Amino acid sequence: MTAPAPTNSPLNPRDTTNNTATLTISCADQPGIVAAVSQFLHNHGANIIHSDQHSTDPSGGTFFMRMEFYLEGLGVSRGTFERAFAQVVAEPFGMSWQLSYAARPKKMAILVSKYDHCLLDLLWRKRRGELNIEIPLILSNHETLRRDAEMFGIPFHAITVNKENKTEAEQIRLMHEAGADFAVLARYMQILSTDFLDQFGKPVINIHHSFLPAFVGANPHRAAFERGVKLIGATSHYVTAELDAGPIIAQDVISVTHRETPETLMRIGRDVERQVLARAVKAHAEDRVLVYGNKTVVF
Amino acid sequence: MTAPAPTNSPLNPRDTTNNTATLTISCADQPGIVAAVSQFLHNHGANIIHSDQHSTDPSGGTFFMRMEFYLEGLGVSRGTFERAFAQVVAEPFGMSWQLSYAARPKKMAILVSKYDHCLLDLLWRKRRGELNIEIPLILSNHETLRRDAEMFGIPFHAITVNKENKTEAEQIRLMHEAGADFAVLARYMQILSTDFLDQFGKPVINIHHSFLPAFVGANPHRAAFERGVKLIGATSHYVTAELDAGPIIAQDVISVTHRETPETLMRIGRDVERQVLARAVKAHAEDRVLVYGNKTVVF
Amino acid sequence: MTAPAPTNSPLNPRDTTNNTATLTISCADQPGIVAAVSQFLHNHGANIIHSDQHSTDPSGGTFFMRMEFYLEGLGVSRGTFERAFAQVVAEPFGMSWQLSYAARPKKMAILVSKYDHCLLDLLWRKRRGELNIEIPLILSNHETLRRDAEMFGIPFHAITVNKENKTEAEQIRLMHEAGADFAVLARYMQILSTDFLDQFGKPVINIHHSFLPAFVGANPHRAAFERGVKLIGATSHYVTAELDAGPIIAQDVISVTHRETPETLMRIGRDVERQVLARAVKAHAEDRVLVYGNKTVVF
Amino acid sequence: MTAPAPTNSPLNPRDTTNNTATLTISCADQPGIVAAVSQFLHNHGANIIHSDQHSTDPSGGTFFMRMEFYLEGLGVSRGTFERAFAQVVAEPFGMSWQLSYAARPKKMAILVSKYDHCLLDLLWRKRRGELNIEIPLILSNHETLRRDAEMFGIPFHAITVNKENKTEAEQIRLMHEAGADFAVLARYMQILSTDFLDQFGKPVINIHHSFLPAFVGANPHRAAFERGVKLIGATSHYVTAELDAGPIIAQDVISVTHRETPETLMRIGRDVERQVLARAVKAHAEDRVLVYGNKTVVF
Repeated sequence: MTAPAPTNSPLNPRDTTNNTATLTISCADQPGIVAAVSQFLHNHGANIIHSDQHSTDPSGGTFFMRMEFYLEGLGVSRGTFERAFAQVVAEPFGMSWQLSYAARPKKMAILVSKYDHCLLDLLWRKRRGELNIEIPLILSNHETLRRDAEMFGIPFHAITVNKENKTEAEQIRLMHEAGADFAVLARYMQILSTDFLDQFGKPVINIHHSFLPAFVGANPHRAAFERGVKLIGATSHYVTAELDAGPIIAQDVISVTHRETPETLMRIGRDVERQVLARAVKAHAEDRVLVYGNKTVVF
Repeated sequence: MTAPAPTNSPLNPRDTTNNTATLTISCADQPGIVAAVSQFLHNHGANIIHSDQHSTDPSGGTFFMRMEFYLEGLGVSRGTFERAFAQVVAEPFGMSWQLSYAARPKKMAILVSKYDHCLLDLLWRKRRGELNIEIPLILSNHETLRRDAEMFGIPFHAITVNKENKTEAEQIRLMHEAGADFAVLARYMQILSTDFLDQFGKPVINIHHSFLPAFVGANPHRAAFERGVKLIGATSHYVTAELDAGPIIAQDVISVTHRETPETLMRIGRDVERQVLARAVKAHAEDRVLVYGNKTVVF
Repeated sequence: MTAPAPTNSPLNPRDTTNNTATLTISCADQPGIVAAVSQFLHNHGANIIHSDQHSTDPSGGTFFMRMEFYLEGLGVSRGTFERAFAQVVAEPFGMSWQLSYAARPKKMAILVSKYDHCLLDLLWRKRRGELNIEIPLILSNHETLRRDAEMFGIPFHAITVNKENKTEAEQIRLMHEAGADFAVLARYMQILSTDFLDQFGKPVINIHHSFLPAFVGANPHRAAFERGVKLIGATSHYVTAELDAGPIIAQDVISVTHRETPETLMRIGRDVERQVLARAVKAHAEDRVLVYGNKTVVF
Repeated sequence: MTAPAPTNSPLNPRDTTNNTATLTISCADQPGIVAAVSQFLHNHGANIIHSDQHSTDPSGGTFFMRMEFYLEGLGVSRGTFERAFAQVVAEPFGMSWQLSYAARPKKMAILVSKYDHCLLDLLWRKRRGELNIEIPLILSNHETLRRDAEMFGIPFHAITVNKENKTEAEQIRLMHEAGADFAVLARYMQILSTDFLDQFGKPVINIHHSFLPAFVGANPHRAAFERGVKLIGATSHYVTAELDAGPIIAQDVISVTHRETPETLMRIGRDVERQVLARAVKAHAEDRVLVYGNKTVVF
């Protein structure tokens, strides 16, 4: 109960300014990187808004950088700009780099089974403008959540799992067709094959309902109950061939007591799961996550 | 990505066991209360599941108790049971008391304006079975959220505010008609009159988007931004005549940095608001909140 | 910078009221327990201050209760009171029970190696009156912390580990001599033998510098660093024969980022370790922890 | 209880690398700042380890930057380096800037009254190597904490407050004599005069035992108790002429329930106060805090 306030809340500039680009870089740490990159951007009239950097070890480690900048001032075409950067900066420093434009939000495919909480949270945040993404399709192995998906006007495909390979092949076909840039497993109750990951060839983000590496695999809430832990958690990570062992993007926990049962832990856990998954998706969508080995830098 | 788990998650017994009753008591602290109440319940075959008590001061303070028990064993009718309790226990100890039955969930009216996050979170938790309540109607001063309300099959009444008294009269008529036991202001952007509170005569729960008593009134996120705080919060409280000054039920905060704007604080705050309001509504629905003076005991 | 406030801060009544007793009970859940116990206390003029109960399953589970009450009104001697309780209540219900008196604080032995943070935090909280315990001795396998121990006027025994059995035998002799009721491993870098636990025969509380069951054993900070987790934790548990697998009393975590090294994780972890250990020790000292199987009820 | 681990824990490189310098800058935001600064550092062989920047508004706002770099490569003397930077970079961009050297830790004076928790926490963290500072003196208006101060070998001056001006004059004389770079009020129960602040002329950091701006002034725990809040907090801020209204550096809160009294809130609050104050002191000592208007940027 408060006096009226502006009702269509302006969004986080980071999410929506359509006139910005984000440059992410990684390379062997060496003197002069920041100078070279910032000089290049300055010379091309690209005004830096945010800049983050990290080095695993200033002497002989790996260097990571994320720079967000305005495009207005850009004197040249994006193509020219990118070619010039590759030639003048990236090659000399041996950088792997990526440039993305806020005006071209990433396309996210969602895979889900029967639990609604992570799916609905992502759809609502998207609708609210919290996530600068597009959601071209939702894939499920059940019909359960069709209505929810359609409420938000998102194409929903239920492919019941019979011969796994066929199912996965169909899922991948649909995701490629939809131009998905990455996929999110919003409590998807099937283990993806290595083939799936190879053939999709894009990042896949999962939410696991425990504080990894504790309670890998099925029924973590039951396992947490058996162990008598006083906190339960959730972990969002990139999917790799090894179950629940990929690079961690975000984690959080919540306190629990002896009063809880595996069922109430499941209920309590939902709130952490949707928060942690949303945080990971937002970071990925904004190019804040850089992977190295089995770890992440999250700017 | 986990092996399949039971998909219709059993709910918190506390929410759904339809065969339990909850007794809440407050009276002057004095010896023998617990003995008398537990003896009475035992004699009537009511097996205690949960029991909480608190005393503001064991010598001369106020005593509060909440007992949840099974009804199976009850040898007599509820009416007989209640009359007997009044006579044998409540009167001698000068108790004010209340008995509610899980099989008769409370009816909650929701008042909302244009923000969707608190409304949708409540509807969604209700649908999930997290809240043992009924939601007979949603009142708004705007049409904005009609479709969301109807998605969940809840009657939605938009009453545009012209002459306040008339609006409030109509709102109260509808709430009484629907048998509302309490009302929730899920980011409702009108200040309720004292008349409204008197005529409704039931508890009204509000969510305020700050850590009260800091930033009372309008635009707390702007005020938080101006003050440069490093945490923003949300407070759920019972509404009283004085703005944002009623008994606090639940509060929480989240860390923020110098990078935030009033707009991003608004976005970040949404997650805390919906969590805190849901916690308060759940506690109220389960008769866990006892008010004394301007404070609450939350069991 | 505030106006003066009372400088010898009154302490938590729970810690210091010397005229209270705490009764803890566990037995098979069955009707009438609360009634019988509270009736007994009332009949003997023992006025209940706090009461907590829990049942693992109201039908056929185990029932736990903790009741704190004043002794003033006690019409009889403690001995008579205890004998009467055993006969009238405990035996009929097949209870295991314990009665402790605030006026007889528990005696805590501390075992420590070279890290000072957990030791100093406990000594300091004891000095402040936060912990209603006595600390008759500190045992170490190093001389490092002698001065700190002596600053607080606590006998310090450094027993360098040569033939383990002899060391442990000496430690146990000293703890028994000092009448220790329980022992705390405040970052003690030796693994206790099963013999040690058997011969000491009292509870031993450990602090492990990870969120168990993640990162059992040595160097959890290194392991956490390798896995790239975004939270590090601490776990306080009762020591059992199996390493880091005993009943958990308290846990907490703190957020970390990609910027941390194993060394900075160690520094950050110290704050969580001392908080979690202090919470566990306080709960144990106040008879709030009841163990069943490999779990705890913490009232 | 864990296998042995290295006992003299290596410290946070940020605290102890004696071969680094930190440059902090603020100026009107304008294109080319990052390029100019990083180019300058690169040309002088100063290799950047950490870099953070913030702009209150990329178009027409204020720009803040903190860069930490190694000095090995420095081809010239510090004096030459600083003069060159002033001329080549700072003046053209109209920067206010500061350069500090890890090898010259800041000198911190502590003012304290009778509460020991904040004082001891700072002394211990200093001893542990968590804080790269020197503590040349402790000032108090009571004798109470002399022994604690002397335990850590720090000169302790108790100046009982009679004629305030004289006291403050004496305190300032001692702080100047000791070359204090800043002062910390570790629960100092006197309100400093504006004269004091003017004559000391250095930053003064205070810890207030509430979540400011809630509960300004004396007895915040009493006020929190009266209001029935469900969280209590602590706020560390720079002292200004207006009581408890200076720029906030760090804040945190902890949950409390209806069971607490003003006395137990005081006890619980101590843990938050010492954590928050330590965080603020560490940030200030590492030149991570930049003040603008009544706010801070904390890198």
